[in-house]
Amino acid sequence: MDKIRIGIVGYGNIGKGVELAVARNEDMELKAVFTRRNPADVKIETESADVKHMDDLASMKDEIDVIVLCGGSATDLPVMGPEIVKNFNTIDSFDTHARIPEYFENVDKAAKDGGNVGIISVGWDPGMFSLNRLYAESILVQGSTYTFWGKGVSQGHSDAIRRIEGVKNAIQYTVPVDKAVERVRSGEALELTTREKHLRDCYVVPEEGADLQEIERTIKTMPNYFDDYDTTVTFITEAELKQNHSSMPHGGFVIRSGETGTEGSRHIIEYSLKLDSNPEFTASVLVCYARAAYRLSKNGESGAKTVFDIPPALLSMKTPEQLRAELL
Amino acid sequence: MDKIRIGIVGYGNIGKGVELAVARNEDMELKAVFTRRNPADVKIETESADVKHMDDLASMKDEIDVIVLCGGSATDLPVMGPEIVKNFNTIDSFDTHARIPEYFENVDKAAKDGGNVGIISVGWDPGMFSLNRLYAESILVQGSTYTFWGKGVSQGHSDAIRRIEGVKNAIQYTVPVDKAVERVRSGEALELTTREKHLRDCYVVPEEGADLQEIERTIKTMPNYFDDYDTTVTFITEAELKQNHSSMPHGGFVIRSGETGTEGSRHIIEYSLKLDSNPEFTASVLVCYARAAYRLSKNGESGAKTVFDIPPALLSMKTPEQLRAELL
Repeated sequence: MDKIRIGIVGYGNIGKGVELAVARNEDMELKAVFTRRNPADVKIETESADVKHMDDLASMKDEIDVIVLCGGSATDLPVMGPEIVKNFNTIDSFDTHARIPEYFENVDKAAKDGGNVGIISVGWDPGMFSLNRLYAESILVQGSTYTFWGKGVSQGHSDAIRRIEGVKNAIQYTVPVDKAVERVRSGEALELTTREKHLRDCYVVPEEGADLQEIERTIKTMPNYFDDYDTTVTFITEAELKQNHSSMPHGGFVIRSGETGTEGSRHIIEYSLKLDSNPEFTASVLVCYARAAYRLSKNGESGAKTVFDIPPALLSMKTPEQLRAELL
Repeated sequence: MDKIRIGIVGYGNIGKGVELAVARNEDMELKAVFTRRNPADVKIETESADVKHMDDLASMKDEIDVIVLCGGSATDLPVMGPEIVKNFNTIDSFDTHARIPEYFENVDKAAKDGGNVGIISVGWDPGMFSLNRLYAESILVQGSTYTFWGKGVSQGHSDAIRRIEGVKNAIQYTVPVDKAVERVRSGEALELTTREKHLRDCYVVPEEGADLQEIERTIKTMPNYFDDYDTTVTFITEAELKQNHSSMPHGGFVIRSGETGTEGSRHIIEYSLKLDSNPEFTASVLVCYARAAYRLSKNGESGAKTVFDIPPALLSMKTPEQLRAELL
């Protein structure tokens, strides 16, 4: 069987995760990693794959079936996504929620022009959590859906702390409030405020001689990021940060509570993730959607898609017959 | 907007649940319930719908978009499924696992002959649990999937007890073993025996003067049904059975534990259901897949499908634009 030939654009945490995930899927092979850095400076794990400069991407059009775009949503993907899908099938994890409709339109037009498939906003949220919100509300039409994130690192919030004067390094965990999760799980119909759903737990390495009280005050009152939350700030050393806060766990819950019938039967649908490595898990989702993009494209489809548009069977290495016999 | 016109074949617990679910979906209307009984003897909730004899089904071909088949898997569906899909789009909850491949082939051929869509084995298991097994193993290729059922009534096991001499009535609950669920959730890689995964909890109403010890012995040693399980038997009165065991709760868990990367990152994906009414929930799943069958058929597709083949967006009343803006 011909393997699905994968390219990776961008070699940060997600790009590295995609490389590792491809190695765990025997129907795929990594052909090349593309970078804006000097390729000679980028060392990858896969001996059989090349590191190339982004400028060489278009020339590999016939050697790659799907490109997994591992750039950032803020500035990379809005430009790269529509550009690259003209020549390749693509998968990305675009997650700037407010701009998804616009991004979808741009990728859709370029993908149709190029006769390719671009699956956008793939991962766990957006991605698997989105799917579970859709399935759950389609089944339980009358009800409420609650999404909780964590415990896990928020890069955006960690970065916001690092920009404060006197802060040398920092990491921020988003933590779901146990009591709120339990109440939702018990089927209570709730209107939860931001503060009731999540806590923010900050570990901060201060510069020498910094005003710790002032740092703590600045964090806790920071608009949008922290002022609507119960926030704890703990000062630690750089060594402690490295030792205890270097892994990237994450996870969360999507819970829908709803009712059916005329006698008030109540039902709880819950989907939860507990992840040791956020980037490796996200990458694993991207890679099974790369399989779907490949199959859709082989089948003559083109345009932008999301997880909502993909028949689940296309994600699996198994044949439809195997799926029916083994998993149904 | 034209409503999706639904027909129900068979008016037991699931059929009644489908009627209630259709009433909760504003883009649908119930046209008729079909029965093998005398239609005059069947009273339904929906005033605007008819009760008809099965013999009148074919004559309503142009008035119904999707038929939800609510017969049993043992004898009804294997005959009805292929027969009815010749003239109508159908949804069913066929759940005789070993016969799914054969049933799929039969429905597929008849559906293609008639130019209709037949979505088989829809509900929560098979159905939502199957989907979650597929998604989870497609993401975490190296790992193990565990399915636990309950606490909930097993009709098959309840029936088996009722056939024992001296038993007037009985109900049997399948109960997942908490300790096993916790171990799986913690990411332990386990080989669990049947006995380690589920308990069987039986409530039995004896005939007057029956030999209770003999009943208990017969239950606990019954091959296939009980001998591989830890089983408890509690004798109760008919009044207690009515009072405490008339509702039909159910639920369960699909948990996949797997690893990614090269450093042994472990991840847990869990999907769980806690259902007040098994038939009403199953019916709610059937009804959103009826929407998908209608849309696939309008789009010119035909043949047998399972939940694995259905793009999730087809289940929702929302437009693709709404889904991307609100749920992605």
